[in-house]
Amino acid sequence: MKRILRELDPFCLIQTEIDHSENRPAESVMSLGNGYMGARGNYEEDYTGDTLKGIYIAGVWMPDKTRVGWWKNGYPRYFGKVINAPDFLMFHLSVNGRRIDLAQTPIETFRRVIDMRTGVMEREMVLRTESGRLKIVSSRFFSIDTKQIACMTYSVTALDDVGFVTIETGLDANVKNSDANYGDQFWVLRALEGGDRLYLESETMENSFDVPRFAVGFTSHAHCMEDSVRQSCIQGERCVFHRFEAELSAGDAFHIEKLVSVVTTRDIPREELASVGGGILAHAADEGTVTLRQRQAAAWAKRWQLCDVTIDGDIAAQQGIRFNLFHLWSTYDGSDERLNIGPKGFTGEKYGGAAYYDTEGYCFPMYLVTSTPDTARKLLKFRYNTLEKAKENAAKIGMAGALYPMVTFDGEECHNEWEITFEELHRNAGMVYAIYCYTEYTGDESYIRDYGIHVMVEIARFWACRASYQPDKDCYMLLGVTGPNEYDNNVNNDFLTNYMAKWSIEYTLDWVKKLSYPLDTAQMQKMQEVADKMYLNYDPETMLFIQQDGFMDKEIYPAAEIPADELPLCKHWSWDRILRSCFIKQADVILAFYYFPRRFTLEQKRANFLFYEPLTVHESSLSPSMHSTVASACGFEADAYRLYQQAARLDLDNFNADTEDGLHITSMAGSWIALMHGFAGMFYQGGQLSFSPHCPEKWEQVKMRLHYRERLLEIRFNAEEFVCELLQGEPLEIAINGELIFVRDRWQQALK
Amino acid sequence: MKRILRELDPFCLIQTEIDHSENRPAESVMSLGNGYMGARGNYEEDYTGDTLKGIYIAGVWMPDKTRVGWWKNGYPRYFGKVINAPDFLMFHLSVNGRRIDLAQTPIETFRRVIDMRTGVMEREMVLRTESGRLKIVSSRFFSIDTKQIACMTYSVTALDDVGFVTIETGLDANVKNSDANYGDQFWVLRALEGGDRLYLESETMENSFDVPRFAVGFTSHAHCMEDSVRQSCIQGERCVFHRFEAELSAGDAFHIEKLVSVVTTRDIPREELASVGGGILAHAADEGTVTLRQRQAAAWAKRWQLCDVTIDGDIAAQQGIRFNLFHLWSTYDGSDERLNIGPKGFTGEKYGGAAYYDTEGYCFPMYLVTSTPDTARKLLKFRYNTLEKAKENAAKIGMAGALYPMVTFDGEECHNEWEITFEELHRNAGMVYAIYCYTEYTGDESYIRDYGIHVMVEIARFWACRASYQPDKDCYMLLGVTGPNEYDNNVNNDFLTNYMAKWSIEYTLDWVKKLSYPLDTAQMQKMQEVADKMYLNYDPETMLFIQQDGFMDKEIYPAAEIPADELPLCKHWSWDRILRSCFIKQADVILAFYYFPRRFTLEQKRANFLFYEPLTVHESSLSPSMHSTVASACGFEADAYRLYQQAARLDLDNFNADTEDGLHITSMAGSWIALMHGFAGMFYQGGQLSFSPHCPEKWEQVKMRLHYRERLLEIRFNAEEFVCELLQGEPLEIAINGELIFVRDRWQQALK
Repeated sequence: MKRILRELDPFCLIQTEIDHSENRPAESVMSLGNGYMGARGNYEEDYTGDTLKGIYIAGVWMPDKTRVGWWKNGYPRYFGKVINAPDFLMFHLSVNGRRIDLAQTPIETFRRVIDMRTGVMEREMVLRTESGRLKIVSSRFFSIDTKQIACMTYSVTALDDVGFVTIETGLDANVKNSDANYGDQFWVLRALEGGDRLYLESETMENSFDVPRFAVGFTSHAHCMEDSVRQSCIQGERCVFHRFEAELSAGDAFHIEKLVSVVTTRDIPREELASVGGGILAHAADEGTVTLRQRQAAAWAKRWQLCDVTIDGDIAAQQGIRFNLFHLWSTYDGSDERLNIGPKGFTGEKYGGAAYYDTEGYCFPMYLVTSTPDTARKLLKFRYNTLEKAKENAAKIGMAGALYPMVTFDGEECHNEWEITFEELHRNAGMVYAIYCYTEYTGDESYIRDYGIHVMVEIARFWACRASYQPDKDCYMLLGVTGPNEYDNNVNNDFLTNYMAKWSIEYTLDWVKKLSYPLDTAQMQKMQEVADKMYLNYDPETMLFIQQDGFMDKEIYPAAEIPADELPLCKHWSWDRILRSCFIKQADVILAFYYFPRRFTLEQKRANFLFYEPLTVHESSLSPSMHSTVASACGFEADAYRLYQQAARLDLDNFNADTEDGLHITSMAGSWIALMHGFAGMFYQGGQLSFSPHCPEKWEQVKMRLHYRERLLEIRFNAEEFVCELLQGEPLEIAINGELIFVRDRWQQALK
Repeated sequence: MKRILRELDPFCLIQTEIDHSENRPAESVMSLGNGYMGARGNYEEDYTGDTLKGIYIAGVWMPDKTRVGWWKNGYPRYFGKVINAPDFLMFHLSVNGRRIDLAQTPIETFRRVIDMRTGVMEREMVLRTESGRLKIVSSRFFSIDTKQIACMTYSVTALDDVGFVTIETGLDANVKNSDANYGDQFWVLRALEGGDRLYLESETMENSFDVPRFAVGFTSHAHCMEDSVRQSCIQGERCVFHRFEAELSAGDAFHIEKLVSVVTTRDIPREELASVGGGILAHAADEGTVTLRQRQAAAWAKRWQLCDVTIDGDIAAQQGIRFNLFHLWSTYDGSDERLNIGPKGFTGEKYGGAAYYDTEGYCFPMYLVTSTPDTARKLLKFRYNTLEKAKENAAKIGMAGALYPMVTFDGEECHNEWEITFEELHRNAGMVYAIYCYTEYTGDESYIRDYGIHVMVEIARFWACRASYQPDKDCYMLLGVTGPNEYDNNVNNDFLTNYMAKWSIEYTLDWVKKLSYPLDTAQMQKMQEVADKMYLNYDPETMLFIQQDGFMDKEIYPAAEIPADELPLCKHWSWDRILRSCFIKQADVILAFYYFPRRFTLEQKRANFLFYEPLTVHESSLSPSMHSTVASACGFEADAYRLYQQAARLDLDNFNADTEDGLHITSMAGSWIALMHGFAGMFYQGGQLSFSPHCPEKWEQVKMRLHYRERLLEIRFNAEEFVCELLQGEPLEIAINGELIFVRDRWQQALK
């Protein structure tokens, strides 16, 4: 564990130095976004050290022709990728004609802060250039009030008589994706205009996959208050800049404000990009930077009002959860149902920025509880809207019904590892689970009636076709699957997959009956039979659910016995050795207890946790949070706490040594789950909201909010007591540790 | 099934037309080679139709940086590839300044013949050019007497007054590998000289993998008998040609003879390439084409003397086996122990031209029996010489001992599919099996004593480390393997793998004791324990050996029920579907009965054949021959015959619809196995050679030869009788159907 930011703070992310050896992780942590666009925390100035430049625009992507070593029938033709957008954040700084390179220039002081209350990054540093010292003060934010707008300031003050200082800032399309399969330049330049306002229009390159091309119009305006500064416009190859130059003596300063509007053909016809983008920019400029910042702060305050979590008495835990919520909401805010939650959000190229099952498996509960139902419903609609493609996807592998993709932008499968693409099937049940959560939590049955049932029936149809009958054992099996634990591939009867398949058929058939959904009897009977006879491998003696057929034939010993220099396994052991070992990458059987806490006994949960947790190496960011959640339910407080910290500070402390690639956005939601469903023990079913709190002793108090059926609730708890306060809406009955309580305004309950 | 050559012939390959839609398969079938170099049957003239140009030089290869979709820890850094060499076979033909393109020019008659008795290709055709008809007669062969020499003739006769006819022939380095991962040009041009003799020297490009670079020197001399022909030399970008031009009226003709010598830095220092190559060429030219052809015919006759097989009464079967033997000996003749048998020989780029386990699994028995022991011993030495790399390979996946690579040129693993590279382990036992065959067949224990034992011990060490102990069942298991059947991946306890591992440890320990090989007691005990307690899944009730754990949980139904339009499965079913199906790509359990015919009862063989054969889709070229062999042993004559025909004519009849990529060289040996070990039922152990013939009724007679312990034997058999004739050497005792017989000159035995 290595803290990327040396200083802890409950509300802020504070970087106090540029550590060149750790620059990429720092860039990841200092990312910003507004759901519409975002960027890694690259420096404004030139930086020739180790850096991953990245600015991304939501929903603007390219199909990159599949690259594999060995083609397997059924592989998709392309992998969709979010594109590194033209750079509009840079401020090239020169002194007496020499470019300042932050990797080479001595830095006397450096402090960069993101205030998560407002979503604004501010930086102050003193550089010792060859001509003397310069103080730079800059700021940056992506407006969540007017999402097309990015707002920047950049001030230079000479601390010595430095001479000529030049700033060039504008729009630059000389960018590449570092993960392009064939080194393609994904952007074609369409327009480049200088003047008082700069305009750059670029379009994604042609493709042969019938994927629509996207054009993006960038309009930039930068101005300087000081009359003494010479301003000009310069144009280069695929770029255009405003140039500011002044001769500075000690104490002289100048200050640039820059606004950029970014509009795309996702929303606006190609021919209107320039005018609409210009209009938005002009309007923002009229309002002025001060107003834009006020609006930004107000909008973030409104969000935090619903979703903030406080953890008193543990600043590391506190910063972790706020960091996670901040980035989740910066990535996705439910305002556009065509979008989804990329596993790296706007913080890296990896995973292509597409939708993964992580959305339903991890993010959905947080958006469901800390926002109005509309946000969660948009996430559900994304899957409903791509049902036809999911049906095509199933047909491609010879199956009936729908198989939702592993990775997608528009519903079409992009992933190309056979053991995952074709075999990781629990994702399909995850779609149903999200619908179930939405319906149970909100009480709104309209979604399932109007949309969800169609998705559910097609998924049930898939399971019924995919399961194979085993006559000797008179049961149905799911052969050749990869469960959530990706350190086992192509296994038979992964317990979680079989369990979720069975459950999702049953849940679907309940609704089929309830809604009198037209489904032919033979098909219904087949579904029912598959669910009834689904093979579930349980050993009543040990109370263990067997992860998969043959699991018990492995050599079983605890991960603690692995020599430290062989960890993480994924970087030290060859793949076959990982696969045949007993070590588990991420929560698998354990997940069932999180999904369905009431369907298993405490003894079962404990037995399985005690068996599987020591075998789990948590080499997926999605793992510690789930184990923490289940550890809470088991009453294993120390495990719950340890695993929570790992989940909550995964990126801040670079636990998996890969924060350099970007943040683990989707798994961030896991730490919220560990708090709400783990420590608070929140559960809902049939209109009954309940809690079974297990707060770590060292925490003075945890405070969280829930938007529940037109109410705003606040819960506050520690190891001794649990408080539920009704902040808005009608009184309601809740259960605390099984005891029914009627909350009129505020209910306080001792726990010991 | 579609015959690529329309005409059947017992000795010749006869192509009577250019079918543009089937041109690539025809090029493959009409390939030639001499073990040192070889080429696909590309036409001499320009051809803009579908073609795969290919000329290859044995042992000259390039490491091509690994290309994968998703990197797995342990993957090799490069895939070695045989390189498409500079073209020295072309004769560019022009008439009145217009290039003749065989894909566009009407062809009145066409006949191209490879006489397998001599290894010479001859072609005669009449072209109808825009200026009139031309008759072309040409020939080509790679000398097996002087391997560096390729010999060509090219004659043009005008059948009308056609005008100016031009031939350009020489050396051209404008070639590429169509399978280059990153589109690299693998050759760097080092020298290009015109004159009476042309010289081109090229070197493989630099690489970052410490793989030695190879330089090749090509010297070409072409001359024309007729004085009326103007001769000149022209030089172009990376190419140099001799040019012949004459004005031809009806009846006029000219005739070109061309010799090319090819020498490489594998044998000759770089600075001497030109002079040595020139010397070899001069010597060949002095001898003259007629002498070279005589020597070629004599050398081939000598080979056929030992290895020829005649099948009277079935011209298709006859042509098939001769075709296979011809190509095997054209690919590898045992004269260079640094070389091995590429799965496509000199007939295509696929599989990189490297050594596969096919050598030991398929080719070895043929070379062992139809040649002096020296040839087989060279193949064994190839593995002994790469033992250190095999140990490194095992260490890379965290194992002790040696793991021989799936694919290699110099011992270093090149393959990058985790389920194969890391998990297909039976290849390792195959190395031991080849040593066992050599020792048992030749009676020569010096190889095992001096070399083989070291290989065997390291392989036994690997098994002892790789097997994992299962305490509940008190046995050792091989988890996470891929058996020979590649339509199941990452399974536990593949029967054949476990069986071969057990056998190879036992065989090794026998020799360890016999030779008093120094091996510490604990290690020996561990090996013995692993062998003793190796898990073998046998169902005594059904007499079935279960292919792998969980196999019986699959939905089991015969391949005959697969709709025809879904075959081959590899082109129609997605990979997951193939994997979880019961369908078997290639012989797996069945192989055990071929390897160890005396260790299983007839009833066991029959039960397993009847169970597994209907599930086997034979989508590997290595499969039908093994099933044929075992079918013979089972007495299932119809199956044996059907599967033999498929094996023997796999490429001639394009059974797997992929002959266009090149010939299935290594699997060709399977048809010889099906004849010798299947139909003749040949077996050897402890100095006892035996036969159990099962000849198909429709064959009048099969005649084969064996070089056995300083003797030359000929066997001739049909369904009624079996004859063994001692052609050379001392009398010996053999067994026929279990009956011991002393063969002094000739033994004739009735079978019914």
